[in-house]
Amino acid sequence: MRKLRAGVLAATGAVGQNYVHLLRDHPWFEITFLAASKDSKSFEEAVSARGWFMGQDIPADVRKLRVFEASNLEAALDGCDFVFSALDKDVAKDLEMKYAKAGLPVVSNASAYRGDPFVPMLMPEINADHIRVIPAQQRRYGFKDGFIVVKPNCSLQSYMKPIHALMAAGYNVDRLIVHTQQAASGAGRPGVSALDLIDNVVPFISGEEEKSEREPLKILGSVDNDKGIVDYEGLAISATCTRVPVRDGHLASVNISFRGKKPSADQIRLAWALYRREPQELGLLFAPDQPIIYRDEPNRPQPVLDRDSGNGMAVTAGRLRECPVFDYKFVCLSHNTVRGAAGGGILNAELLYAKDCLKPR
Amino acid sequence: MRKLRAGVLAATGAVGQNYVHLLRDHPWFEITFLAASKDSKSFEEAVSARGWFMGQDIPADVRKLRVFEASNLEAALDGCDFVFSALDKDVAKDLEMKYAKAGLPVVSNASAYRGDPFVPMLMPEINADHIRVIPAQQRRYGFKDGFIVVKPNCSLQSYMKPIHALMAAGYNVDRLIVHTQQAASGAGRPGVSALDLIDNVVPFISGEEEKSEREPLKILGSVDNDKGIVDYEGLAISATCTRVPVRDGHLASVNISFRGKKPSADQIRLAWALYRREPQELGLLFAPDQPIIYRDEPNRPQPVLDRDSGNGMAVTAGRLRECPVFDYKFVCLSHNTVRGAAGGGILNAELLYAKDCLKPR
Amino acid sequence: MRKLRAGVLAATGAVGQNYVHLLRDHPWFEITFLAASKDSKSFEEAVSARGWFMGQDIPADVRKLRVFEASNLEAALDGCDFVFSALDKDVAKDLEMKYAKAGLPVVSNASAYRGDPFVPMLMPEINADHIRVIPAQQRRYGFKDGFIVVKPNCSLQSYMKPIHALMAAGYNVDRLIVHTQQAASGAGRPGVSALDLIDNVVPFISGEEEKSEREPLKILGSVDNDKGIVDYEGLAISATCTRVPVRDGHLASVNISFRGKKPSADQIRLAWALYRREPQELGLLFAPDQPIIYRDEPNRPQPVLDRDSGNGMAVTAGRLRECPVFDYKFVCLSHNTVRGAAGGGILNAELLYAKDCLKPR
Amino acid sequence: MRKLRAGVLAATGAVGQNYVHLLRDHPWFEITFLAASKDSKSFEEAVSARGWFMGQDIPADVRKLRVFEASNLEAALDGCDFVFSALDKDVAKDLEMKYAKAGLPVVSNASAYRGDPFVPMLMPEINADHIRVIPAQQRRYGFKDGFIVVKPNCSLQSYMKPIHALMAAGYNVDRLIVHTQQAASGAGRPGVSALDLIDNVVPFISGEEEKSEREPLKILGSVDNDKGIVDYEGLAISATCTRVPVRDGHLASVNISFRGKKPSADQIRLAWALYRREPQELGLLFAPDQPIIYRDEPNRPQPVLDRDSGNGMAVTAGRLRECPVFDYKFVCLSHNTVRGAAGGGILNAELLYAKDCLKPR
Repeated sequence: MRKLRAGVLAATGAVGQNYVHLLRDHPWFEITFLAASKDSKSFEEAVSARGWFMGQDIPADVRKLRVFEASNLEAALDGCDFVFSALDKDVAKDLEMKYAKAGLPVVSNASAYRGDPFVPMLMPEINADHIRVIPAQQRRYGFKDGFIVVKPNCSLQSYMKPIHALMAAGYNVDRLIVHTQQAASGAGRPGVSALDLIDNVVPFISGEEEKSEREPLKILGSVDNDKGIVDYEGLAISATCTRVPVRDGHLASVNISFRGKKPSADQIRLAWALYRREPQELGLLFAPDQPIIYRDEPNRPQPVLDRDSGNGMAVTAGRLRECPVFDYKFVCLSHNTVRGAAGGGILNAELLYAKDCLKPR
Repeated sequence: MRKLRAGVLAATGAVGQNYVHLLRDHPWFEITFLAASKDSKSFEEAVSARGWFMGQDIPADVRKLRVFEASNLEAALDGCDFVFSALDKDVAKDLEMKYAKAGLPVVSNASAYRGDPFVPMLMPEINADHIRVIPAQQRRYGFKDGFIVVKPNCSLQSYMKPIHALMAAGYNVDRLIVHTQQAASGAGRPGVSALDLIDNVVPFISGEEEKSEREPLKILGSVDNDKGIVDYEGLAISATCTRVPVRDGHLASVNISFRGKKPSADQIRLAWALYRREPQELGLLFAPDQPIIYRDEPNRPQPVLDRDSGNGMAVTAGRLRECPVFDYKFVCLSHNTVRGAAGGGILNAELLYAKDCLKPR
Repeated sequence: MRKLRAGVLAATGAVGQNYVHLLRDHPWFEITFLAASKDSKSFEEAVSARGWFMGQDIPADVRKLRVFEASNLEAALDGCDFVFSALDKDVAKDLEMKYAKAGLPVVSNASAYRGDPFVPMLMPEINADHIRVIPAQQRRYGFKDGFIVVKPNCSLQSYMKPIHALMAAGYNVDRLIVHTQQAASGAGRPGVSALDLIDNVVPFISGEEEKSEREPLKILGSVDNDKGIVDYEGLAISATCTRVPVRDGHLASVNISFRGKKPSADQIRLAWALYRREPQELGLLFAPDQPIIYRDEPNRPQPVLDRDSGNGMAVTAGRLRECPVFDYKFVCLSHNTVRGAAGGGILNAELLYAKDCLKPR
Repeated sequence: MRKLRAGVLAATGAVGQNYVHLLRDHPWFEITFLAASKDSKSFEEAVSARGWFMGQDIPADVRKLRVFEASNLEAALDGCDFVFSALDKDVAKDLEMKYAKAGLPVVSNASAYRGDPFVPMLMPEINADHIRVIPAQQRRYGFKDGFIVVKPNCSLQSYMKPIHALMAAGYNVDRLIVHTQQAASGAGRPGVSALDLIDNVVPFISGEEEKSEREPLKILGSVDNDKGIVDYEGLAISATCTRVPVRDGHLASVNISFRGKKPSADQIRLAWALYRREPQELGLLFAPDQPIIYRDEPNRPQPVLDRDSGNGMAVTAGRLRECPVFDYKFVCLSHNTVRGAAGGGILNAELLYAKDCLKPR
């Protein structure tokens, strides 16, 4: 069977390069279309100005691929079956809509449509069923074959699966106070100045706390045929987001309280250990076998030691202990540029493919 | 008037060097006695093995001073009127007791006696009155002229003054959820391995969370003639303590809820701006004029920019905002090796001196 | 006597902020004019967008000062007696010429005129006499009262004084192989991306090696009435320049060979210890008492421990040892944003002032 | 064919853990014996005190393996066919000799026998033929089946292959001035204090420059039946070794001069590109296909981007350019804990195995 032809929008940027890197030899998808802010004769040439930042070289089959200006819809329609979008929020608003209108499914990392109740914000372990809103989206926007799905902000990747595992196990999570220590790569390239992160941490990331408090409610929400995705209402979240001198890996410290039945620490660890969801059942390739890995060592998870667990797609949790103010506290970690960006986008595409929402055109 | 003669126990270690550095030209105290784990002909020679780590050179009058083994009480009695102790907890238990028994006041950084209700754990802005427990301590342990005072753990220096300022302004602080990002110097030298803090943070510091949750209750406690210092009971604290790649400066993110009357954000900032206490009133030399500095910039405080405010003795606060779960959240910072260690010890000694508890022998 | 009125061009940038910071309470100069890429009501407002990065707050007398567009020569002529220029090379070429033409002496950090034989490139300890070329410069360019002096690139500040001290002591330095490890602040703000300096060093700084090899020859050159400053010819230099995760302080490792008489290690250390030059003799305020500090410890100089020696204006040298290939090797360090930028500019202005080249207008 | 049974001495330390990690699923060797400073019931338990620092978990077949005290020769003879030694220099002197005497080949990372002319110091691309000295070693020390081979210091791994490639291509390398920027992992664990490498570099590593200047001469030496390995005489090296805030990857900047025929830059790059030696010809598993990778980008090699090339076994070179003092300068990089430690040891063992020097006992 031939692979689906994938495009990457904003292919030369930090997230775009990650898509190119991670899709190397993907059995279901192959990159056949690349777009950036301007045309280039080859991807190699297009990245030469800012550099190629992945540990391995540019995949041989992408190196010579021509790069089109992202607004060139004709080239896109010619060149691929769907696109991954790593566009900046500002241009994403307009361009993703145009791609979807033109008939191309858009699997997006941008935040432009995260607030739209008809655009599913997928974390496939949690809300794979949200893709049911796609037909309503298509009706609403007059899309024929195209549509848009998005992924949430990278700051919440580390704690949403552990939280959801407890909800799925029947415990009512009531309140969360979350503190994140986020890696520099979350700001892209050039992103944060070295002078902000040598001998320093910055206790502020613009817009990040708002997203961390708001997006989980949509992720946990339910699909309503008329209103689209309706936010979950039973959970209050307070987030403090900081930037630390780490390359990759967002760490979150979580204080959690329950309403009603409160699990024991063993029950929590068991719920995490047994957590398997649709991506695992469907055998999605980028789905980690063990979505939540719990480590018993007192000083784990740590970004440099744990971010690559499950090929960067798993969450590592640790330090579960009683909280003198809430019920429990724990620490969790996920790889922000793999699970939190390009890898998460690929998992979303795999889910859509397994569910027949992505097809050859 | 002649200066009081001060000794420094464990003078060659990280905190000890800081004492030597900060007492340079102190108008009330002069270093006349130095102790370490073994005798040395001079301080210069004693530090040469591990190195001298302060930005300025060893003060000229200390360079040639002889160093005695810390157990040499005779030399101490000969050489000084009181001692600063930077001893390790293990040896502090025994040695500080011996020094006090021998008649020497001990101003300690060690944790050995922090749990003792008859030993005041001083943050002079908060509990200068706790020195009233000293006579009971002397009776209890049979000290004649000697006594022991301690300072709390460095992790809580950043948030205890902002919290106390609100309590002093009449607001009942009910619950705190605190997350710290602590500097490498908090672990002394060699302390943390570079491999733990290059491209990494470590979400665990042994014993630190327990101290951060327990010590504030004693600091806020009240003096009872029979029972010593009785813990404050109206406050629940949950702490998560992490280590970050920062040289100096402990940062804390605080979520706070009130019982009863809740201040407005303006009232909080006002309470902080107006906070002046006994160290300021007594004109103690190491007391910052403005104990709590609030910064309006959205991304402050930051360790590298704010740790030296008030000569490293002030707390810098910022990012005060509503909390969706508790009442407010904010960020605060203090210099862990100045305010949180040697500078804090010197301030304690200045308080004792101003209150006639330290005298020439 | 009233202070000279100083302007700062590009006052809001990294170097400009350093000028504002370092000129705090300067006894000879006071800042009375500020310029940037656009007008602002006050300096405070002008820096608010990018932030104020110095450890201390903006000096009170500068905070409210109006900021003019740099091209507003009338405002400059009204407002100051001379200017410090922290302009980018590109705009410096044109604007510095205009300021000089308009009658204002320009003390510049930019590289635009470093190659001009009629513009002295001052390191006052080495070539204070190069200011003798100013009259020829004024004739050549038709300046009346204005003129331009520049300072060299920051990469060579650390090794030029130790080299010159040996030449001044009568030794013929023949060849230098130099390797620098340069701080992030050398690239300004935002400058280097954090992703380039977390768990990494970058063995390349654009244009830096060329400057490090060429500029010393002009600095060591002699003044010819017709040709301006004529390069020194007896020295070959090879430089490798790298960027390291350090905030401030450029470190250089130097391999040196002599022609003819070769000094002993003691003679080298003595030449450094005794090195005193015109800035010291004239009592310039920013001149370090001891321009070259030699440290005996085997592991010094280090950026974090030594960059502030002599208030950031001294060079710290260490590790002098025999070289199996050349004659000797040693390591040296200077503070790149103080000695290597704004502090060096102020020292140049002080020299000009002491020599009556800067006067009230 | 059954795999050779390998032991690891000092298995719980930094290098030992790397051996355990890298030998995972090795087709020729399997770990069957582990030794440390004291007995433990299992490897898992033995490492729990200090932690397991590899990105992946302990290999399943090693996790439960018993750990013996290193002096237990009987257990070693029972348990393995040869040993990898990651012992500290001090104990290595005695213990490695005992192991060899007892009949076990020792493939060592320690420096204890590097100076012994009868112990080959192998870099298999350069001096595979030095294993010819083993029979003389056995005679000299009265070993029957045992022997010792060592690998050189990690500091020179990055530049010795590029240098040798030029010598092998017929150019006489005359003089080298080398400057290294070495990773923290080179000092093991805990190794360097974080306080030495936050906002800092340290221009000194004890003993490292001496090794970097001396060991290459033995590596390039020739085997003499009577005298053992005789140092190469035609090369003068001067090294400056510094420590930088990098986890893994030693970077070296090299200035090189030739005697006689001087290659063009193209000839140098060609010599590097074509460099293939015995490890490649024998198809050793840990031998990189391309031992020297040249990168054209102006700012490469960089530790974080290039250290893993060739699975951490290749050298990456770049920035070849004319030197104003010598003939050329360039920059090169190798992974110090893979190529420079455990991976290098494994390659040595593979060479010995392919040459029938390692056999089942």
